[in-house]
Amino acid sequence: MTGTSGTMRASVMTGVGTLVIEDRPVPTPGPHEVLVEVAAVGVCGSDVHYYRHGRIGDFVVEEPMILGHELSGRIAAVGEGVDPARVGQRVAVEPQHACRRCKQCKAGRYNLCPEMKFYATPPVDGAFCRYVTIDDDMAHPVPDSMSDDAAALLEPLSVAITTMRKAGIVPGSSILIAGAGPIGVICAQTARAFGASRIVVSDLVASRRERALKFGATEVLDPAKDDVAALDPKVDAFVDASGAAPAVVSGIKAVGPAGKVVLVGMGADEVTLPVGYIQNWEITVTGVFRYTDTWPAAIHLVTSGAVDLDALVTGRYDLEHVAEALDSDTDPASLKSIVNPS
Amino acid sequence: MTGTSGTMRASVMTGVGTLVIEDRPVPTPGPHEVLVEVAAVGVCGSDVHYYRHGRIGDFVVEEPMILGHELSGRIAAVGEGVDPARVGQRVAVEPQHACRRCKQCKAGRYNLCPEMKFYATPPVDGAFCRYVTIDDDMAHPVPDSMSDDAAALLEPLSVAITTMRKAGIVPGSSILIAGAGPIGVICAQTARAFGASRIVVSDLVASRRERALKFGATEVLDPAKDDVAALDPKVDAFVDASGAAPAVVSGIKAVGPAGKVVLVGMGADEVTLPVGYIQNWEITVTGVFRYTDTWPAAIHLVTSGAVDLDALVTGRYDLEHVAEALDSDTDPASLKSIVNPS
Amino acid sequence: MTGTSGTMRASVMTGVGTLVIEDRPVPTPGPHEVLVEVAAVGVCGSDVHYYRHGRIGDFVVEEPMILGHELSGRIAAVGEGVDPARVGQRVAVEPQHACRRCKQCKAGRYNLCPEMKFYATPPVDGAFCRYVTIDDDMAHPVPDSMSDDAAALLEPLSVAITTMRKAGIVPGSSILIAGAGPIGVICAQTARAFGASRIVVSDLVASRRERALKFGATEVLDPAKDDVAALDPKVDAFVDASGAAPAVVSGIKAVGPAGKVVLVGMGADEVTLPVGYIQNWEITVTGVFRYTDTWPAAIHLVTSGAVDLDALVTGRYDLEHVAEALDSDTDPASLKSIVNPS
Amino acid sequence: MTGTSGTMRASVMTGVGTLVIEDRPVPTPGPHEVLVEVAAVGVCGSDVHYYRHGRIGDFVVEEPMILGHELSGRIAAVGEGVDPARVGQRVAVEPQHACRRCKQCKAGRYNLCPEMKFYATPPVDGAFCRYVTIDDDMAHPVPDSMSDDAAALLEPLSVAITTMRKAGIVPGSSILIAGAGPIGVICAQTARAFGASRIVVSDLVASRRERALKFGATEVLDPAKDDVAALDPKVDAFVDASGAAPAVVSGIKAVGPAGKVVLVGMGADEVTLPVGYIQNWEITVTGVFRYTDTWPAAIHLVTSGAVDLDALVTGRYDLEHVAEALDSDTDPASLKSIVNPS
Repeated sequence: MTGTSGTMRASVMTGVGTLVIEDRPVPTPGPHEVLVEVAAVGVCGSDVHYYRHGRIGDFVVEEPMILGHELSGRIAAVGEGVDPARVGQRVAVEPQHACRRCKQCKAGRYNLCPEMKFYATPPVDGAFCRYVTIDDDMAHPVPDSMSDDAAALLEPLSVAITTMRKAGIVPGSSILIAGAGPIGVICAQTARAFGASRIVVSDLVASRRERALKFGATEVLDPAKDDVAALDPKVDAFVDASGAAPAVVSGIKAVGPAGKVVLVGMGADEVTLPVGYIQNWEITVTGVFRYTDTWPAAIHLVTSGAVDLDALVTGRYDLEHVAEALDSDTDPASLKSIVNPS
Repeated sequence: MTGTSGTMRASVMTGVGTLVIEDRPVPTPGPHEVLVEVAAVGVCGSDVHYYRHGRIGDFVVEEPMILGHELSGRIAAVGEGVDPARVGQRVAVEPQHACRRCKQCKAGRYNLCPEMKFYATPPVDGAFCRYVTIDDDMAHPVPDSMSDDAAALLEPLSVAITTMRKAGIVPGSSILIAGAGPIGVICAQTARAFGASRIVVSDLVASRRERALKFGATEVLDPAKDDVAALDPKVDAFVDASGAAPAVVSGIKAVGPAGKVVLVGMGADEVTLPVGYIQNWEITVTGVFRYTDTWPAAIHLVTSGAVDLDALVTGRYDLEHVAEALDSDTDPASLKSIVNPS
Repeated sequence: MTGTSGTMRASVMTGVGTLVIEDRPVPTPGPHEVLVEVAAVGVCGSDVHYYRHGRIGDFVVEEPMILGHELSGRIAAVGEGVDPARVGQRVAVEPQHACRRCKQCKAGRYNLCPEMKFYATPPVDGAFCRYVTIDDDMAHPVPDSMSDDAAALLEPLSVAITTMRKAGIVPGSSILIAGAGPIGVICAQTARAFGASRIVVSDLVASRRERALKFGATEVLDPAKDDVAALDPKVDAFVDASGAAPAVVSGIKAVGPAGKVVLVGMGADEVTLPVGYIQNWEITVTGVFRYTDTWPAAIHLVTSGAVDLDALVTGRYDLEHVAEALDSDTDPASLKSIVNPS
Repeated sequence: MTGTSGTMRASVMTGVGTLVIEDRPVPTPGPHEVLVEVAAVGVCGSDVHYYRHGRIGDFVVEEPMILGHELSGRIAAVGEGVDPARVGQRVAVEPQHACRRCKQCKAGRYNLCPEMKFYATPPVDGAFCRYVTIDDDMAHPVPDSMSDDAAALLEPLSVAITTMRKAGIVPGSSILIAGAGPIGVICAQTARAFGASRIVVSDLVASRRERALKFGATEVLDPAKDDVAALDPKVDAFVDASGAAPAVVSGIKAVGPAGKVVLVGMGADEVTLPVGYIQNWEITVTGVFRYTDTWPAAIHLVTSGAVDLDALVTGRYDLEHVAEALDSDTDPASLKSIVNPS
């Protein structure tokens, strides 16, 4: 582990709206773990939310914490039980550490493990720093043809893949996606890759609707003018990537009999839903909380050209400018910001 | 068809809260149809709702209509294409007439057929009368050992069976049921028959909670005192048979990771749901709208003794006293009223 | 129906290896039916098998019969209950007529209807003739951009779509396909369209392996040299499109834990299978018998460019040369022959 | 760990047909493990097969090995990370030790883990001895009301539960079970507990058919006289618990459209199957290899009285008479033998 011991620089959130550069010890990989030198970290809406509000629902930042959980890098060292030949390998990190022993883990739903330690979710540190550790099976090798940025963005693509699975998207499906932010745009691309024939994206902002058309949407709606609930014919599935209550309500009503609704966007904890409609047409409503077994599929979608992640990147920042990266979402032209810690 | 032509008496709802006995022509069975002489009709909450309010959601009673859709009887005549040997057969009626040609029908979801003609749903007449017609495959033969009452109540049992299927109840499952009215009580019995090991029923009324314990509940809760959302351990599935918004909210929070929620009770068209909880634990929420392919299973559950429908009957009325039957739900001791038209 | 009454020419199989041109009455569309003027008919291996052997398993040609069941055309007349505006519409025909009333139909499996009347399956006539009738919902409109040939070949594409559904192919899946004939090649294309990342095709003939590489295969195997069962890593699914017993056995052993096997190719009625392997790895083995609800997805796969059906056509014949069309499979360069009856 | 260190007696298979009593060191529970003092061990057909043939398929007994994998006992000591309060707890042991890290484990299929260490499967020792260790989550607490014998037999009941899950048995299903040995009889009981309405059991031996009728069968067949394949109506599912090729073939043909076949019995590695029938009716054929997440359901089925395991026990042996226990299957009156090591 020459060169990886000692200390490293990290961008630490020490309070709401406050980030400081600190020297932290380089972590040591335990058994079945690898040490990853971080190459690229995508900025996620949840990072921004913790930074601005100090909490998301019941998760509260009470101690200084490192943000960032969409990342790629290179294996710098390995712990006990890991093949030393992995040192030097370029990897995308699946940032979850599950217990592997509980009922959820044993049922194949490790994303719902009650003892989950997830990057940048209090009190677990994330990746706006030089080095991180992760279980070796969560460090997914990526081909040389894939950029560090794209490898980092396999994480939000994993959210989109999980969403399409839950939405039941197969060749010929129709889907409505509310919100043309990063997740909405990746969902549109992923819906196309899953074979959806009709991909409707709604967004209040014209430039975002235009963007959606570039990334897979076959039609766009302006909820300020168009009656989204009156879509004709109705769609097989609705994905909310907006977190906006009116979008959720109109989106549910746009779904046809036995249709599927997947709520991805984080919004209010409680939302008034059209329960009568859900009952009369046996609509199924659920949410997405992270992912299981998505990186291999995500890597294929990118390497086959079905999904373009590099085109999403609109800004790049070093470790000293994480605050600027986090604030970039206020620029309507910004889609995805990347932090390069090394 | 000797003896079945001519006219018959029917209890007709001519306006909100108004029922009159009328002479109506005995219907003639068309191709693939049978004529059923009605023996017993269960009173459903939806009959009561139409009677008192003249509508359920978008379904409005605009013309005089016969109520009643839970029924059994005897085949009195058959239409073209039906085996004449069926005349005389005792049957339970599945009161839906689907188009059999649309996308939903061809996908096996005939309950969601947009062209459905369902008994006692405007403008389709129901069964508070002497004779009805139905497609021959929707007239399910019942064994002699089954009473007319039980055969009629295979309809709400079909709702419960559909609910258990959607709730994913299998041997060893745990379930919470809100509401100990007829559907809640049948759901408790059906959950037990599907193998549920823990069946929690919540109801505000002590006598109804006691009743639930007789019909399958392994424990009961009083939502006025008990914190339903704090159930420990959480359950695999929650079924709302109350239609009460607070019950829906607390019930959803009582469900564990990847759990299922099925909304059966009819309540407000819009309800505020704990969407954050649904997302964080990937809860699935859906509703039940009637049923497909349930009568054979229902008949088995009754004949095997797993479900007791006769024990639910607390009142019996003739055609002249349908109003009393409909109003019987105001008596807390009443559970299920039966109308005998013949 | 001016111009469509009277008689039409048809190529009739009057015995094993014998086809004669006959004048037949133009059929009259019944209620809910349309009359289709046939534009293109693909030759299927089952047509060839009936022509050469007079039977497939229990289905025996005992009366003169018209072959051909992969077809497109134009609606020439409509029966009662069908919108007259459909006359003139270009359509692809789903050649099955189910009862819509039996248990299988009501469960959404109309392909397994015991009363099915399927084109060119004794004693039901097929499409090597000028006009045919079909239920109106089985005449699927196709866009002008799609050729008659491609519209006819939506039928074998429907087999491939059903196969991929049963094989569980989703983005990132790996699949082995045995046999690079028409179905194998369409399956390879369809697997790619469903997102498979690894598509292995095995065939004994080098030119057929080369063809597979043009149509979606990512690698090919020669079972005469390569040990198919030793594929490393094993695949998620195996599709047999060869009907050859050795291919079935080695293919099953190439599948990993909990993998899926779908037998599409028609071969011997009884085949010796590696049951121990199936048990030890909980492999699932099933077959494909036609399709349900595939035409809309098939049309999307073709119009989106994901599947190229026109490129499969290697020969075109008129009604007088159906025998040559049926015999074209003896030419290794032949892939798909089309008969144009009009 | 006072009292549990030192040595223990074990019945060790040292060669085909040879068992010797040896002194072995009491194993020490590692992290997350418990030490179980064995109370009862059921004799399984696979134990008998290893004893008589030294191998099952690719699994070969090459070193001395302790047989026995159906067991109950009491926790005698706990390893690091396990609540010491568990000492003294009565438990049923799920005898598998999976890696928890591979693709199969993470997908919820830990039974298919390629690195599985399973009791009494070479080279892993089993339970015909005084003490064993197991992962703490695989030592399932049982209520005092359950006997040691029944707790041990939760293991074959787990096989039956897995079988019913794969066979899709729900209330109202019909099922054919071939073979009225221990697994067939437990499957019949379990099918009834899952709600099957028609449970047909076939066996060549009259006394075994009579036994089946006591344990859930609603009808029995003698394959020497009855044409099993001609069952009318056909069944929804067929379970082979015989391992006999003719039973497998006739059983498959007794299944209706879209039916399920589950092969539980171990027989020849290769069996000739009616592939044409499987294809034409889209039958699904699979096998059962152990189980995941069955003990809680199994415990409920026993405590609720739905399944009676104690009634299966026909012989009881001490550690010195394991050979007699293994040979007891030659007595037609024998159903399940138990070894009590302590």
